[in-house]
Amino acid sequence: MDKHNYSTPVSLKNIQVTDTFWKGEMELVRKEVIPYQWDALNDRVEGAAPSFCMHNFKAAGKLNREKKEKGNTFIAPKYTFRGFEVLPEDPKQLKDDEFYGFVFQDSDFSKWIEAVGYSLTQHPDPELEKIADGAIDIVCAAQQDDGYLDTYYILSGRDATFTNLKDHHELYCFGHLIEGAVAYFQATGKDKLLKAAERFADYVAANFGTEEGKLHGYPGHEIAEMALVRLYELTGKEKYLNLARYFVDERGKRPYYFDQEHPEEVKKGHEDELRYFYNQAHLPVRKQDEAFGHSVRAVYLYSGMADVARLTGDETLYGACRRLWDNITEKKMYVTGGIGSTHLGEAFTYAYDLPNDTAYAETCASIGLVFFARRMLEIAPEARYANVMERALYNGVLSGMALDGKSFFYVNPLEVLPEACHKDERKFHVKPVRQKWFGCACCPPNLARLLSSIGSYAYTENEDTLFLHLYMGSTLEKKIGEKTADIRVESNFPWEGDVKITIRAKDTGLKLALRIPDWCSRYELDGFTGGTEEKDGYLYLQKDWGEEEEFTLHFPMEVRMIAAKEAVREDIGKVAVMRGPVVYCLEETDNGKDLQKLLIDPELNVTVSDGNICGTPVKKLTAAGFRQLDTHIEKESEALYHVWKKPEFEKAELSYIPYYTWANRGENEMQVWTRVRD
Amino acid sequence: MDKHNYSTPVSLKNIQVTDTFWKGEMELVRKEVIPYQWDALNDRVEGAAPSFCMHNFKAAGKLNREKKEKGNTFIAPKYTFRGFEVLPEDPKQLKDDEFYGFVFQDSDFSKWIEAVGYSLTQHPDPELEKIADGAIDIVCAAQQDDGYLDTYYILSGRDATFTNLKDHHELYCFGHLIEGAVAYFQATGKDKLLKAAERFADYVAANFGTEEGKLHGYPGHEIAEMALVRLYELTGKEKYLNLARYFVDERGKRPYYFDQEHPEEVKKGHEDELRYFYNQAHLPVRKQDEAFGHSVRAVYLYSGMADVARLTGDETLYGACRRLWDNITEKKMYVTGGIGSTHLGEAFTYAYDLPNDTAYAETCASIGLVFFARRMLEIAPEARYANVMERALYNGVLSGMALDGKSFFYVNPLEVLPEACHKDERKFHVKPVRQKWFGCACCPPNLARLLSSIGSYAYTENEDTLFLHLYMGSTLEKKIGEKTADIRVESNFPWEGDVKITIRAKDTGLKLALRIPDWCSRYELDGFTGGTEEKDGYLYLQKDWGEEEEFTLHFPMEVRMIAAKEAVREDIGKVAVMRGPVVYCLEETDNGKDLQKLLIDPELNVTVSDGNICGTPVKKLTAAGFRQLDTHIEKESEALYHVWKKPEFEKAELSYIPYYTWANRGENEMQVWTRVRD
Repeated sequence: MDKHNYSTPVSLKNIQVTDTFWKGEMELVRKEVIPYQWDALNDRVEGAAPSFCMHNFKAAGKLNREKKEKGNTFIAPKYTFRGFEVLPEDPKQLKDDEFYGFVFQDSDFSKWIEAVGYSLTQHPDPELEKIADGAIDIVCAAQQDDGYLDTYYILSGRDATFTNLKDHHELYCFGHLIEGAVAYFQATGKDKLLKAAERFADYVAANFGTEEGKLHGYPGHEIAEMALVRLYELTGKEKYLNLARYFVDERGKRPYYFDQEHPEEVKKGHEDELRYFYNQAHLPVRKQDEAFGHSVRAVYLYSGMADVARLTGDETLYGACRRLWDNITEKKMYVTGGIGSTHLGEAFTYAYDLPNDTAYAETCASIGLVFFARRMLEIAPEARYANVMERALYNGVLSGMALDGKSFFYVNPLEVLPEACHKDERKFHVKPVRQKWFGCACCPPNLARLLSSIGSYAYTENEDTLFLHLYMGSTLEKKIGEKTADIRVESNFPWEGDVKITIRAKDTGLKLALRIPDWCSRYELDGFTGGTEEKDGYLYLQKDWGEEEEFTLHFPMEVRMIAAKEAVREDIGKVAVMRGPVVYCLEETDNGKDLQKLLIDPELNVTVSDGNICGTPVKKLTAAGFRQLDTHIEKESEALYHVWKKPEFEKAELSYIPYYTWANRGENEMQVWTRVRD
Repeated sequence: MDKHNYSTPVSLKNIQVTDTFWKGEMELVRKEVIPYQWDALNDRVEGAAPSFCMHNFKAAGKLNREKKEKGNTFIAPKYTFRGFEVLPEDPKQLKDDEFYGFVFQDSDFSKWIEAVGYSLTQHPDPELEKIADGAIDIVCAAQQDDGYLDTYYILSGRDATFTNLKDHHELYCFGHLIEGAVAYFQATGKDKLLKAAERFADYVAANFGTEEGKLHGYPGHEIAEMALVRLYELTGKEKYLNLARYFVDERGKRPYYFDQEHPEEVKKGHEDELRYFYNQAHLPVRKQDEAFGHSVRAVYLYSGMADVARLTGDETLYGACRRLWDNITEKKMYVTGGIGSTHLGEAFTYAYDLPNDTAYAETCASIGLVFFARRMLEIAPEARYANVMERALYNGVLSGMALDGKSFFYVNPLEVLPEACHKDERKFHVKPVRQKWFGCACCPPNLARLLSSIGSYAYTENEDTLFLHLYMGSTLEKKIGEKTADIRVESNFPWEGDVKITIRAKDTGLKLALRIPDWCSRYELDGFTGGTEEKDGYLYLQKDWGEEEEFTLHFPMEVRMIAAKEAVREDIGKVAVMRGPVVYCLEETDNGKDLQKLLIDPELNVTVSDGNICGTPVKKLTAAGFRQLDTHIEKESEALYHVWKKPEFEKAELSYIPYYTWANRGENEMQVWTRVRD
């Protein structure tokens, strides 16, 4: 680890994203997702599963108020477990002192306020800010005198606080609260929620640690690790970094902390090494080589590990991050940047197990992979991290949201037969069309917070260098000492590969590091007159800048047929089609039924054309190919099996659309991996 | 339906199977399975899940005895539900008045006694018969005064008798008891168990029917239908046929009987048509077109339907049987004769959904398909039924048992990666090696009863015609009026396609109907001098027989590459290799790891050789083929995805073994469907 290579995300206050593509996504979030989500948090969306989130905060606030009014005579309810999800007897008559919904429902607010914060940096909106301030008032009113702030336990019984770290998401909600509070403070300068989050963090710090008398536990669902690092980086208070490090260090130590909480797990007689894989707590993190368990939790943990490694210079921890990164991206990642091959536990499976039709590939997991990627980039600017970040963003992340921003996928399969989704219980998790909202609504708000802050993934910086990881149209300001450099990036990514960069950086000593995407085999730099150096997939530019200079990068966006390693059983003999960073797919709407009968011509005669999907402009591809004809069987045309005959084909044009735009035109078959006629 | 075409199975008393292949299987059952099973029934197999079966009968018998001793003062326990499987608190201290095990555990005995009966016809064994008689005494001692005989309810509370037909297998155990009793009577002439079964049947007949005051229910797990027909055919008592017909007719009528039993199912809000699919009770049977639900239950029902249709001449019912047959064999059957594509509900899914690696294809389901096939043959001698029967027997059925008869498969996948079975919960039902015994032990005893009675599937007869469905070496006697014809069949099926038939049938008017297997495109008949006619896949022979005549059939056993209909997504571009009726597969032991990299040469250069698997002689195949080489990727050899390059291959010899012999040489990869390099 070389601290000279470190970089940090450019503050959203110093970027304005102007990019047609990403600005469009951000506007969808601002205009559709954030208001919709606010309605959802308040259970006002007809036909959607209620969140109960704001109800719970209000109920907890009422309890607080009554407690104060009654002085010390208030007695908290004694905790009894009522299931992972508490449903009201009568959904129309919520009791005003009851908790409802999933135990992690508080996090719905936190993700929303985080997205709101980011959005305000790009598009000031006093109305929205007012709503957000009001929501913050409600949330803060629920905070206990000791700083504790989780409505499930406030309403169900504080005596059970921190008794089920493994399953109850208490520290997960805590982490999300910090993330939301930091984002909102950074956007608005308002610190009410930040102070509340700090008080909660102080409470947690007072209760967890290696010291005697403290709990030696750690989160069952990770995120607090990276959240605490953010809080540390904002406030400079070491104790938050220490708490993050403690959570990372304690995880997976023997005897297992979760064994105390969950004697029933011990009883199950799982071999020692098999316990808590799901929670990445089967081994101390520094000994982990393989990504296991719930994939969202996993990448959230690895992100936190990378953060702690960066700040503490911990080489061993960084080594584990690198090994886990390699394991995911070389053995367990779909071509779309999707991760998590099975819905059972929403989890990673074994190496090269990447089934297309039963994939889980949760939107949140790809988002988490983006988090992890950026944190690895912050430590070392190697293009392999940005390549995966880009792959996930344009494919497995964006596919999570409909083009109108009104419906969402949890699961992002690479092959869909709608009949299977309806009739085959093994594929019930795979939805052939996006859903409006989920009771367990992690993906839509997670998309909202990522997309609203997308600029902070495109660019990182250190003292004198600006790193361009994604070529996103933007204007940026960069401070270098006392001076300010202005940078303007113009591009029509991901549809065209030209990037125009305009620099006003006279006497600043600004350096630029430009990522060379892995999808182009050559590139051109036009109009730049200074020194260049290529390293780790970045092109470093340095010169004495004039008043205003501009130059252009050309990344040829060729259409490529991509093969998977032959170890991937599901993809052997097949190819995925990509153009630039975009993965393409076939849909029944364009290609008819039975996509398995289609083959692509390996000569790859392909035309690229401007088109649109439901009004959204995209590049479409038309590739020469074939349709395998049904074998003509004499007499028994209905026979399921017949003696093989040399297959016959007719020519067919394969119409490809970007994978992330699938399922916007109704329920139909979809396929990413298509046979190649070699 | 033409009664002139009807035939019935040849009595096992009139056949001696002499066939090397099948006699070997029967001897395994006799020497290994039957004694092992007896130990299992008595919980004497170390390391295997206890059956508790004989324990339960003894406990019920004790209750009976005490009841008699105490006169009428005995009060039966009040029923409380204790789960689908009742496990003892201390497995070493069973209480002598408690029921243990699955609710259907009684059927373990019934299947065993059925196999014993069949076995005694082929191999008299006074020792075994003595053990069987002793077991029958124990079972009969458990029968209640009113004829009721199901130990779960006798021991748990008779007040709940017939209150959960849907799930509790009461009428399933009843059906198996009849099957066992009939078989044992037919083999030995001893009627103690038969009388008990009749008394139980009388009790059931008195309680079920359309009449007022009777229960209008029917079995949740079918088998009683076909069992009652057997009892009718043995005893001539119409009421048993009527009860069978009632069960068939009542099934699926609205309002659903199971709705009364299971208000919770109604509450679930499943659409009306979706309820009881699992039990084939979603529609009246005559309206059913598609095979649904639990596949064993389904084919047991269809077998019973065919029996009732045959005996009642019910064309509409027969029409349903034909439609369901076509639906299974044209849309839902693996090339091995396996059925049931999903482990969830051990069930059929939708048309052409035949995943190889997650297949369920339960051994019992293939056995049930054999039952159904023979019953369809009994109505109409069309080779398509016998073709499927043969396919299932040599492949999906036999694969259920290890070559040493000591371990068993429940699930018969067509592709196995052992790592997946261990690490991927979606494939935990797929075992890479056979298991010793199962707590829910349906498959091993079902195999035992089928294999011991295999002669009755090979041959059926009517007044003057002997139908040869399978070419199984045997000697048979056939009565024609007052005369007797002796027939000897010699073959080395399934390894060689020559069949020598010797007839001593002077003045009998014997006709022969010889099935022409679907796997040979031509055949020869040598040495026969009479009249021949081909119809529905059978070659009919007729002549005035001399004292002794012999002739030979030659069915060329060519190796064939078999393709599935292009609608089967999992198999497109792939072939299965068959020789005669035997499906072949690749195993890692012979072909190395990563079987997905292998391709077969479509020229099909194949050599057939004599070999053995663990000492069992088989024909092995060696086919010319290729191994796809790993693409050489510059720089990034670990990259999961790369730009497609024309694949390179090296020549490889593909070593095929018969599918049913797989997994006899330890845990390893296996694959039936292999890519063809076309």
